[in-house]
Order: sequence, then C-alpha cells, then structure tokens
Amino acid sequence: MRWLRYEADGRESYGIIEGDAVVEVKGDPFAGYERTATRRKLDAVKFLVPVVPKTFYAAGLNYAEHVTEMAKKRGEEPKLPPEADVGYRANNALIAHGENIVIPKDAGELVQYEGELVAVIGKQVKHISEKDALSCVLGWTIGNDMSERTWQRGDRTLWRAKNTDTFKPMGPWIETEFDLDAAETTVKVNGRVTDHFRTNHMIHGVAKFISRMSQYLTLYPGDVVWMGTEGTPANLKHGDVCEIEITGIGTLRNPLVRVGM
Amino acid sequence: MRWLRYEADGRESYGIIEGDAVVEVKGDPFAGYERTATRRKLDAVKFLVPVVPKTFYAAGLNYAEHVTEMAKKRGEEPKLPPEADVGYRANNALIAHGENIVIPKDAGELVQYEGELVAVIGKQVKHISEKDALSCVLGWTIGNDMSERTWQRGDRTLWRAKNTDTFKPMGPWIETEFDLDAAETTVKVNGRVTDHFRTNHMIHGVAKFISRMSQYLTLYPGDVVWMGTEGTPANLKHGDVCEIEITGIGTLRNPLVRVGM
Repeated sequence: MRWLRYEADGRESYGIIEGDAVVEVKGDPFAGYERTATRRKLDAVKFLVPVVPKTFYAAGLNYAEHVTEMAKKRGEEPKLPPEADVGYRANNALIAHGENIVIPKDAGELVQYEGELVAVIGKQVKHISEKDALSCVLGWTIGNDMSERTWQRGDRTLWRAKNTDTFKPMGPWIETEFDLDAAETTVKVNGRVTDHFRTNHMIHGVAKFISRMSQYLTLYPGDVVWMGTEGTPANLKHGDVCEIEITGIGTLRNPLVRVGM
Repeated sequence: MRWLRYEADGRESYGIIEGDAVVEVKGDPFAGYERTATRRKLDAVKFLVPVVPKTFYAAGLNYAEHVTEMAKKRGEEPKLPPEADVGYRANNALIAHGENIVIPKDAGELVQYEGELVAVIGKQVKHISEKDALSCVLGWTIGNDMSERTWQRGDRTLWRAKNTDTFKPMGPWIETEFDLDAAETTVKVNGRVTDHFRTNHMIHGVAKFISRMSQYLTLYPGDVVWMGTEGTPANLKHGDVCEIEITGIGTLRNPLVRVGM
C-alpha cells in the first residue's frame, strides 16, 4: 500500500495511491483511517512531505565505502562506526518530492546529495528486540540528505551543512510493502546515473538501529529514521535535477536552485 | 505574562497564570487565543512541557568556564566555539516540571544536570538581524540538559548521553516579561546550591544565535533554543531532587530515579 500526504482544495490529507489516482482518507495511517469517496488524479494534487516527525533520526555514517571514501577525500583515516549510534536532522529542512532544493548564496561548490532509505515508524515502542524491531515500521520512503561539505568540515555541528532550509527532501510517499533485501538505490543527476548500491548493504541494519535506539528512547508514530548512504556523492549545481530511486518504493526528484542565479 | 501548558479534566490547554491560579484560554499563545471563564488552582492541574517544538535547538557549549573546566576534566585543551553553531536535542526526551528524570540501569555515575535558559520562538522568521532578533521570541523558560558523561565521550553522537527518555526537563512555564541582563541562574541539588552564574554571561548571546541561525533556516512558532550552561555540574543519583532557578522566570524541579533501585 502507498500512502501519499498531499494538498488539494486548500486542505492537507492522507490518501491511498491506486494506479494514477489517490483515494482520500479521513484520519491518517498512524492513528487510524476510513476511506472516503474522494478520488483525485495524482498529477492534480500537491505532494507534501509524507510525515513531519516528532523526532527526525539519521544513522549518518552507515555504509563502508562511503565512510572510507569520504575520509580519504579529507585526508583522514577512515573509522567505521563500531556501534549503531543514531544522530539527528531538523524538521525545518524538510521539503517534498518536486520542490526546489535552494542552495544559499554563500555555499561553496561541494553541495552534494546523499540517497537514503527512510524507515517510517508506525507504532510507539520501547525496549523492542532486534528480532521484532521491524514490526514497528509502518513503511518506507526515500530521503536526500543534502550536504554542504565545507560547512560540514568547518562548523562545530551539522546545522548549516545538513539542515539549511530545503536540504532534506523526503518522499514521494510511504510504501508499506517493501523487500529490503532485494532493493537497490540509484541516484541520477540530470538523468545520468551517478551512484548505485544495494540498499541493505549497511554496516548496522535497520532492525539493529531501531532495537538499540529503543533501549533508551521511545519511538513514536511518525518518527523517521534515515539510514545513511553509500558511495561518493557528486556535486550539484543550479539547474540540476537530482533523482533518488529505490526499487519497490519509487523516485524522489528535486530540482536545484542557487540563490541569486 | 506567564503561559502554562497543562492537563485538567483529561484535556490539554494553555492558560495564563494569575497568582496561584491559571485562567484557561481557547487557542494558544502562538496562533492566537481568547480567555475563557475557566479558572483552576495551579496545584490542581498537571503541568505539561510548555511546548513540543517543531525543531529543538541547543547552543551546547556557550559559557567559557563550562567549556574550559569540562575540557580539563577530559584532559583536553579547551576550545571556545568561534561561531554560534547551533546543535540539536530530541523531543522524545522532554518531560515537564515535577516529572521524574529516569536514569537507565546501565548508565554510569557521571549523570549530571545542566541548567539552561530557553528562548521560545513566537513568530516565523528568516534573515532577521541581530538587532531585531529578540522580537521573534515569545518568552523564556528553563531547561535541564541532563547528560551522561561516559556516553557523551564514547558514543559517536549525543543520542544516549543527552536524549535518553526524560533527560530533557523543560518548564515550568513560559515567561514573556524577562530581564535577561539582570537574570541569575541557580542550581540546587536537594536544596543545596551547586552552581550559580549570571544567565547572560554567554560566549554568543541569544540575539546573535537567532540572527545567525535565521540566515540559513526558518524559525517557527514553538521552536525552542536552549542556550547552554556555565560551571561544572555535579553528579545526580537516585533519590536526588534537582532544581534550576532563573530569576524572573521561576524554578524547574525534577526528582531523580534510577531504574532497578
């Protein structure tokens, strides 16, 4: 099942995607819903971020080649994370499928995508075992963890590098049926493939992260966990279009715009 | 004016504190409100966290003595932050005035308070000047940035150290009239003063933080910015009561409980 959050007739709703249409529901996929008779063409609604989380989690470094290659670029020894220590991103930066990623005027040239799988939490859990951990996941979506590398190296935190407004595209929808082991992530810039990897080729898997997190914190319906990226992302510039496809979910597409261009 | 968020008769409301009573409003201090005729004794309502932010910002290192002394304890050279680079905390960890701070079973002995001033944003702003920055602040409250120091040193991020459930007490209310320059912060453990400092003795002031943040991100009504702490906080253990007082705002009081004790 595919859950879309969208705006139509000045109202925000959740709906279920059927073919090229979306069936509006009363309620939402987290607290409960009823189908309505309202059906709209997908291309007639404005896509919204699938959910605004209570807490926005991000695994950060979670694929070996990415950790190794990014460290090399900085002239540092790569250090693989020994534990599933989750990090955070910020809600101000979220934008939906189709919306512009806006690069600030004073950003450098090293503005890069990071294509990520996103687990959307559907149930409140604490102290969940690794074996049961995926039972709290409602579904899956796609995130683009846009990063300005100069700020990432220079600032004390990741606030500008990762959380500048529009730097966290997420969508296009939540897919509840998903074969994680079979999935592949493909990133395209202006239609050309720039990265391709097995989605589940993670250092610490989704179940391990969720189980470990839940020993200390309560996960709530609507929380999201971004799972990190593989490879060495390319630079993006004004006028580019960045697409992240995960097989079985869909494609998250966002154009790039630099302020003042 | 003092804004309380509270629960009474199974309902969450905002209210205005008048003496030892709270006058319920329809609406909230962010989007607008009307006073109602419902008036309750303060000791007859359950205090709630004053606001659950869209994004939970924290200055982190922002007082010179704290930065210097904490570095010494780790045997490191102190590095004062050259810029107002804001960090983040997580909503799962928020608790209200009076609620228990719960120390996990496997936490070490270095579980410490950090008494902090909190700016509560009242208006949506971007690109605000330092001169005008405080105009977007609705009011002020108090935060206790509870920290487990062993995890803080060992984990890759601050997730467990700072964001374990219950590690972010905030309250008791939002005070809109506040003389920042005159304010003093006093921390007491079991009634004994353990820290005392001038609240505005910050490396980077509130206006500087907000202005700089707003060059890259939109601040939204209800966002909170925790401003950091001074001094060398003491350890807290099962059975302790931690109080943080900021003159002109009030006192945030929370008992400590360790799991399994």
